[in-house]
Amino acid sequence: MKLYDDPVAPTPRRVRMFLAEKGLDIPKVTVTIGKGEHKSPDYRAKVASGRIPALELDDGTVICESVAICRYLEGIQPEPNLMGRDPKEAAVIEMWQRRIEWELLLPMASVFRHSHPKMAALEDQCPEFAGKQKPVAEKRLRQLDRDLGERPFIAGDRFTIADITAFTTVEFFCRYGGVPLPEDHANTRRWLEEIRARPSAKA
Amino acid sequence: MKLYDDPVAPTPRRVRMFLAEKGLDIPKVTVTIGKGEHKSPDYRAKVASGRIPALELDDGTVICESVAICRYLEGIQPEPNLMGRDPKEAAVIEMWQRRIEWELLLPMASVFRHSHPKMAALEDQCPEFAGKQKPVAEKRLRQLDRDLGERPFIAGDRFTIADITAFTTVEFFCRYGGVPLPEDHANTRRWLEEIRARPSAKA
Repeated sequence: MKLYDDPVAPTPRRVRMFLAEKGLDIPKVTVTIGKGEHKSPDYRAKVASGRIPALELDDGTVICESVAICRYLEGIQPEPNLMGRDPKEAAVIEMWQRRIEWELLLPMASVFRHSHPKMAALEDQCPEFAGKQKPVAEKRLRQLDRDLGERPFIAGDRFTIADITAFTTVEFFCRYGGVPLPEDHANTRRWLEEIRARPSAKA
Repeated sequence: MKLYDDPVAPTPRRVRMFLAEKGLDIPKVTVTIGKGEHKSPDYRAKVASGRIPALELDDGTVICESVAICRYLEGIQPEPNLMGRDPKEAAVIEMWQRRIEWELLLPMASVFRHSHPKMAALEDQCPEFAGKQKPVAEKRLRQLDRDLGERPFIAGDRFTIADITAFTTVEFFCRYGGVPLPEDHANTRRWLEEIRARPSAKA
C-alpha cells in the first residue's frame, strides 16, 4: 500500500491527518501539483484521472478521492473510530462532513480557484464568480462559528473525520484563499487551537 | 421515521430510488422547494438548515444530505447492498460516487443554477460562470460515455449508489439544465435505458 501525496495542497492533508490519527504509517510518493507532476505520463499510467491523493493497494487497485481513501483505511483499521460506530452516528458524521464540503469548502475553493494568480494555469478563471462566492464563504464561516459555540467538535462531542475536513479547509483557504478568518470568530479559534495541538495536525 | 421530500428536485430522488431498491416504504412529507416551503418557520423548526431531503428518525434526530441518509438506510437494511461489502469495494464505490458528484453533478448544477431563469430567485446568478462550466460538464459527459463502454455500471459490474447518483444527475440536468445528452453517447444511452427499466426509477 502506498499513498501518492502532495505536501502543499489541502486535500492530501486530509488523508495524512487521518492516517496519523489511526497510527498508520505507509509509504508516500510525492507528486508535486505545482510542478505539474500529476499530469506526467508516468503518473497517469498509475492514476488515470491524475488526481491526488491516490492510494495504491498491494493488488494494484487505485483509490482516489480523499474520503474514499479514508473509508478504506477506516475499514482495515477501525480504531480509533473516526467515521461512526453505528448507522445513526455514521450518518450524522457523514452529514456534517458533507455540509462542510459543499457549503464551506466549495465556496472557499471557488474563491481561490477563480481569483488566485497561481490557479490561472489550472482553471479557466471567472473573477465575477469568485466575487459572488466570497460572501457565501464568509456567511458559512459565521455559521461554523455559531455551530462551534454549541458543541466542541464539528459533528458533536468527539473528534471525527468531519473535523479533519473542516480544519484542513479553514487552515488552507483562510490563509491562502482570500477569505481570512475574522478575529472575532472565538469559537472557531478555540476549536482550531485544539485541533492544532493534536499530533496529527503536523502530518 | 419519515422523509421530507420534494418530487421535482433531483437530490430527493436519489433517496427515493435508494429506498425503493431496499424495498423500504416510509412515510413522506412533501415540502415543495418551488413554493419556498423549505424556508417556512415550521420546516425550519424541524430542519434548521432548510435542506431537502431530510430524514427524521423516531428519536427526533434529523439527517440531511442524501448520501448520509442513504448511509443510515444501508446500515439498518444492509440488503440488497448498494454501498460495498468490504473496505475495498466500499472505497471503490465511494470514489465513483464522489467523482460523479464533483466532476459531473457540480458543473451541470452550476450551469443550471447560474443560467436557468427559475433559479434567479434562489441564487446570485453568474452567467459568465455558467458559460465556463458548460464545456466542463460536456467534457465529463464524454468521459462518462467512455467509462460506460468499459463496464456495465458506474462503479463496476453491479448496480450501486453511484448509479443512482449518476442517473438522477443525467436525467434531471440533461433534460432541464442546459447540457443535453449528445445523440452519439451510445454507452450512456444503453445504461440509461437499463436503469430506467428498474422499478426504482419510478420512485
